Amino acid sequence: MRLVQFQFSNDDGGVRVGVEQREGLGVVDLKAFDASMPSTMIEFLEMGHKGMECAQRALSSGQCIVARSEVRLLPPVLTPQKVVCVGMNYRDHCLEQNAPIPKEPIIFSKFSSCITGPYDNITLPDESQEVDWEVELAFVIGRRGKHIKEEDAMSFVAGFTVANDVTARDWQMKRNGKQWLLGKTFDSFCPLGPALVTSDAVNDPHMLGIRCLVNGATVQDSNTDQMIFRTEKLVAWVSQFVTLSPGDVFLTGTPPGVGVFRNPPVFLKKGDVVECQIDQVGAIRNTVV
Amino acid sequence: MRLVQFQFSNDDGGVRVGVEQREGLGVVDLKAFDASMPSTMIEFLEMGHKGMECAQRALSSGQCIVARSEVRLLPPVLTPQKVVCVGMNYRDHCLEQNAPIPKEPIIFSKFSSCITGPYDNITLPDESQEVDWEVELAFVIGRRGKHIKEEDAMSFVAGFTVANDVTARDWQMKRNGKQWLLGKTFDSFCPLGPALVTSDAVNDPHMLGIRCLVNGATVQDSNTDQMIFRTEKLVAWVSQFVTLSPGDVFLTGTPPGVGVFRNPPVFLKKGDVVECQIDQVGAIRNTVV
Repeated sequence: MRLVQFQFSNDDGGVRVGVEQREGLGVVDLKAFDASMPSTMIEFLEMGHKGMECAQRALSSGQCIVARSEVRLLPPVLTPQKVVCVGMNYRDHCLEQNAPIPKEPIIFSKFSSCITGPYDNITLPDESQEVDWEVELAFVIGRRGKHIKEEDAMSFVAGFTVANDVTARDWQMKRNGKQWLLGKTFDSFCPLGPALVTSDAVNDPHMLGIRCLVNGATVQDSNTDQMIFRTEKLVAWVSQFVTLSPGDVFLTGTPPGVGVFRNPPVFLKKGDVVECQIDQVGAIRNTVV
Repeated sequence: MRLVQFQFSNDDGGVRVGVEQREGLGVVDLKAFDASMPSTMIEFLEMGHKGMECAQRALSSGQCIVARSEVRLLPPVLTPQKVVCVGMNYRDHCLEQNAPIPKEPIIFSKFSSCITGPYDNITLPDESQEVDWEVELAFVIGRRGKHIKEEDAMSFVAGFTVANDVTARDWQMKRNGKQWLLGKTFDSFCPLGPALVTSDAVNDPHMLGIRCLVNGATVQDSNTDQMIFRTEKLVAWVSQFVTLSPGDVFLTGTPPGVGVFRNPPVFLKKGDVVECQIDQVGAIRNTVV
């Protein structure tokens, strides 16, 4: 299933949870199908199997379909407790910068306040001159857990989505005592979506074409088979430290082709359109303003 | 006022917002005084002046007082959108480690999942052998803002509280690509409380004695006048990057006397009792288990 959060495009009102009929088609309004269903993805995930089963019934019913033109897609998760990010997690991205392959995952974070919708604008801050793109496969935690074993990890993952880990390189690499947080967390620096694609709807999350296009030109083009630490390992690793909760978002690292390592370096400017695509998962498209 | 979150000690039920009559005395139950009042501090802060005025009326009424023995204090804020931390922010702490005084604030974060109550246990993780204490003055954001000016900053601060920025030094300093997050964010690594002391109830937040005691022996003993970047500056600085929201917690850095810079280094062990005290704000006491 392709789970989404949306609002009616003629109404700035509340968030609703829905299921896309197919990528880009109409959206089944879960709350219209069953009034007892919640209005946010995190509450939906907290319901566990019951929520998923209801979504499946709603999708099969052919009822309560909202036409695509009446839907504005929101990020599939808003205000998760954690946005967990992984640095240097593609072999080919390490090669690009002559960096050694990490022996352990490198974990950092973004504040959830930087999450924005799949087609929303990326706001270029006055405070940075070096804003860069990073297409990433994201996954979303479906149930609470601590000290999760690798072999059990996938049962804690609700599904996958597409992220752009937008980064101000000046702030990431040269300032803030080399702590990456600030360069990663300006408002609008985490476009996410368009859908949370449930794990059963992705054949092999570690064998997916992954691309970023800027103004139609391909700048990143790799495959998730280049990931050094995969979904199962990342869930097990991070849950040694913290209790994972439904809705927690993981960004699993970016392949080569980012702007900062080009010669000469290239950064985003106003008017640019950045598209991040992952096979079977979807595409997000954001204009830089 | 000394705002708290609590639950009834004979009941593992819901969170409630209250006001301490005085430090350590009975707690006025806001929802009992006015059923329209919310049950969590973040919702209370989102009400702005209306909430504060109601709390003031409740306190003055002398009604709806719950005896201290019937109250279990929770952290004054649960699951804020952000826990913003400042590194190297005390002159005397920089001197202790022969580090230069930073020219800009160094900002990092903890996940909100590590917040625990003022008298709850600190759980020593198997994954670290070097868990250290850090008493810190914390402040809590009262209203939403971006690009806040220093001269307006205090109107965005609801009040102050006491934090222990518990830190696994091995993970902070030697692993995770030197990104501090993991060493800072093990579950239970942010004891917080006991109360959110509103700004008007603190004479000068930058002239307060601040101490940490381990098993009764004073290990940190300084004054918030040693802070390099003060509350107003930190609000202005961080709000260049991100929109601040009610409930966001800032930890403003620690004075000298942490375990890792002792000769030989000292780390926490099971059974230790750590007490963090700040004049006019309060004290938290946590047992290491």
